[in-house]
Amino acid sequence: MQFSSTDPALAQDLDSRDELRDFRDEFIIADPREIYLDGNSLGRLPKRLLPHMQEVISEQWGQRLIRSWNESWFDLPSRLGSKIASLIGAQPDEVLVTEATSINLFKLALAAVRARPDRQKIVSDEFNFPSDLYILQGIIDLLGRQHRLQLIPSSDGITIDPREVIAAIDTDTSLVCLTHVAFKSAYMYDMAEITRAAHAEGALVLWDLSHSAGAVPLDLDGCQADLAVGCTYKYLNGGPGAPAFLYVRRDLQEQLSQPLWGWFASADPFSFGLDFKPAAGLARFQVGTPPVLSMKAIEPAIDLLLEAGIDRLRRKSVMQTEYLIYLADQWLAPLGFSLGSPRQPEMRGSHVSLRHPEGYRIVRAMIEAPPPLLRVIPDFRSPDNLRLGIAPLYTSFLDIQRALQRVRDIVVHREYEGYSAERLAVT
Amino acid sequence: MQFSSTDPALAQDLDSRDELRDFRDEFIIADPREIYLDGNSLGRLPKRLLPHMQEVISEQWGQRLIRSWNESWFDLPSRLGSKIASLIGAQPDEVLVTEATSINLFKLALAAVRARPDRQKIVSDEFNFPSDLYILQGIIDLLGRQHRLQLIPSSDGITIDPREVIAAIDTDTSLVCLTHVAFKSAYMYDMAEITRAAHAEGALVLWDLSHSAGAVPLDLDGCQADLAVGCTYKYLNGGPGAPAFLYVRRDLQEQLSQPLWGWFASADPFSFGLDFKPAAGLARFQVGTPPVLSMKAIEPAIDLLLEAGIDRLRRKSVMQTEYLIYLADQWLAPLGFSLGSPRQPEMRGSHVSLRHPEGYRIVRAMIEAPPPLLRVIPDFRSPDNLRLGIAPLYTSFLDIQRALQRVRDIVVHREYEGYSAERLAVT
Repeated sequence: MQFSSTDPALAQDLDSRDELRDFRDEFIIADPREIYLDGNSLGRLPKRLLPHMQEVISEQWGQRLIRSWNESWFDLPSRLGSKIASLIGAQPDEVLVTEATSINLFKLALAAVRARPDRQKIVSDEFNFPSDLYILQGIIDLLGRQHRLQLIPSSDGITIDPREVIAAIDTDTSLVCLTHVAFKSAYMYDMAEITRAAHAEGALVLWDLSHSAGAVPLDLDGCQADLAVGCTYKYLNGGPGAPAFLYVRRDLQEQLSQPLWGWFASADPFSFGLDFKPAAGLARFQVGTPPVLSMKAIEPAIDLLLEAGIDRLRRKSVMQTEYLIYLADQWLAPLGFSLGSPRQPEMRGSHVSLRHPEGYRIVRAMIEAPPPLLRVIPDFRSPDNLRLGIAPLYTSFLDIQRALQRVRDIVVHREYEGYSAERLAVT
Repeated sequence: MQFSSTDPALAQDLDSRDELRDFRDEFIIADPREIYLDGNSLGRLPKRLLPHMQEVISEQWGQRLIRSWNESWFDLPSRLGSKIASLIGAQPDEVLVTEATSINLFKLALAAVRARPDRQKIVSDEFNFPSDLYILQGIIDLLGRQHRLQLIPSSDGITIDPREVIAAIDTDTSLVCLTHVAFKSAYMYDMAEITRAAHAEGALVLWDLSHSAGAVPLDLDGCQADLAVGCTYKYLNGGPGAPAFLYVRRDLQEQLSQPLWGWFASADPFSFGLDFKPAAGLARFQVGTPPVLSMKAIEPAIDLLLEAGIDRLRRKSVMQTEYLIYLADQWLAPLGFSLGSPRQPEMRGSHVSLRHPEGYRIVRAMIEAPPPLLRVIPDFRSPDNLRLGIAPLYTSFLDIQRALQRVRDIVVHREYEGYSAERLAVT
């Protein structure tokens, strides 16, 4: 993609021709002097959320009380799951919203490993979320030390060579567990290619879609994907810590046994029988009572994503990440920045990492700038990545133009030198 | 306790002398023709909750966005935990609010069993929540069939003889896992007695406090209790499916290893290191990102409970369950009801079960009565229990008097015969 100018006029022109531009009005944008490029950590608040939650709290909890379980809460995991299914290329009865991503990963990874009892290797990569690796390490600790985790390294700090992943998958591999879009570099796997290679060796594949769902088109069923998990608080905009989703391909649902035999996983919870019998189908992958308020908050934004359509969202996202990289090439490369994400859009998710040795202090200067300076909210990923998230529902081209101009100013004027390098708890 | 009359005048007199009567005004009571005796399944909505959640949604999420993690979300599990600690006789650094009860039970039970690798028996009772038994069965399935679960039966359908539990604990017992107040009969264990007996044999004890926390005084530290879990949506009034709590005695926190090695359990989440290192102290018992909206909703009601004081709450609860039993003796016993809860208040939690062969249809008649009849909301526990929960923050003596009078009318006039015996999903 070619861009002809770094001027705001081009950004404004691109915004005026953006077919999704009206969706921005669906979100609270409280401060016009603040640009939010962290929708890949916590999506913005949809305007329709507050009246929606008032109804949930005042009517459903306050007035209908326990009856709301029958009237509108009991089917939340499957109803939300079926909506997410259509964003990720799955059938409605293959996706559930339940628990946290790590818990779903534990359930599905352990179920997969136990389904291949003669195999003792899990393959992953060093770009996976560390928390996903921790869950896998916990599983290995539980099962015994003959099990092991092989991590494929990156040779360039940006991509993982899929041929190295494929070469590591052998007949001792029970599970290939990868994050589809890497949290730091945004490197994106070809899901079909890896899945095919794993199946050729008899291994199962588990995808973490936390940086993919709502951002890039997915075709889980078309790829014959086995298992997937993902959070709902990034591009899916479900709110802080919103419960996660899981996907289990239909024909695997009754073959696999997850280890957390909870009430919501049982065939007939209200019979109060003393012996666990798993529910038919996907329900057996739930565990406990879902946190209703956080579950309810997920639906309004998913409806917006469905309305926008994942293909249009992806088209805009690609154009915006290309534009961001163009501006970075023009303005920031001469100031010591390097691109921490793949240059080819088909290998990249919906965020861009820019690396600079003073990355952390630059991020603090972006976030903490006093008025009347523009504040820009990215996040920082150690050791030196400014991670800039494009949420095509509400990010404008002008946001990107102003944000990168601001980063240039911070470095040109050495503003970052006035900021502390001390790390905050959440960055 | 002696009561002299079944008339509403006595109930009104008791209400006028109730030292906690003003707390009722803190809750939404939407319909004066409806009496809610199901606060032990889902507590009523505190009035202060809606403005509190508006602030969380509009300000914290809408305006502060990702910054709220540092400003007011990151410490939610420990801050809420420390408040619950003071309701259950624990130290502030011994309680966390995190995940669902079943997940916490899985973590702590599996950690306990793995800490006693030479022992292969878990002791519980048949009055435990079936969902707790399912989790234990899942653990046994995971660890292998040499492990087993011994369930102590009830000889009278109301109590469990603690001598039988104690007799079952032997040197092959890794864990004693019991619900402190039984969900159906409200039978309450002597926590100190069972804990002492378990420790004498070298076993650990895990208490489910879901029907105890906020309802009866507890002294976990005084009993030298090892481990506990509980939900927050019953007497703690945290809202539908609100996240649960867990307790680990301080000296056990670094001895035990829970199997779900999540990001929030790691020593330094934002270093993004590839190898899991557990956090110091209790934090290692967390797993994933907490559902913030549901977490935030817990605090207002806990503050009300702390203000009321657990001893005053218990005094009122005992007086109210005694009053309920008095009315049931006078009015309902002649109609074929029997008491499904212990008669001695010191052996009983804060709910009362009344049994009747037509229990299910009586419950439906209570709940579904058309105007101008009074509606009464209890819940039903198979096969024949009307479960009536006393939430002393807002239940009045007049509520109890009117509710029992209504039950009497339903049976005297055979109103229940007009209702279906078909079971609803949630009852």
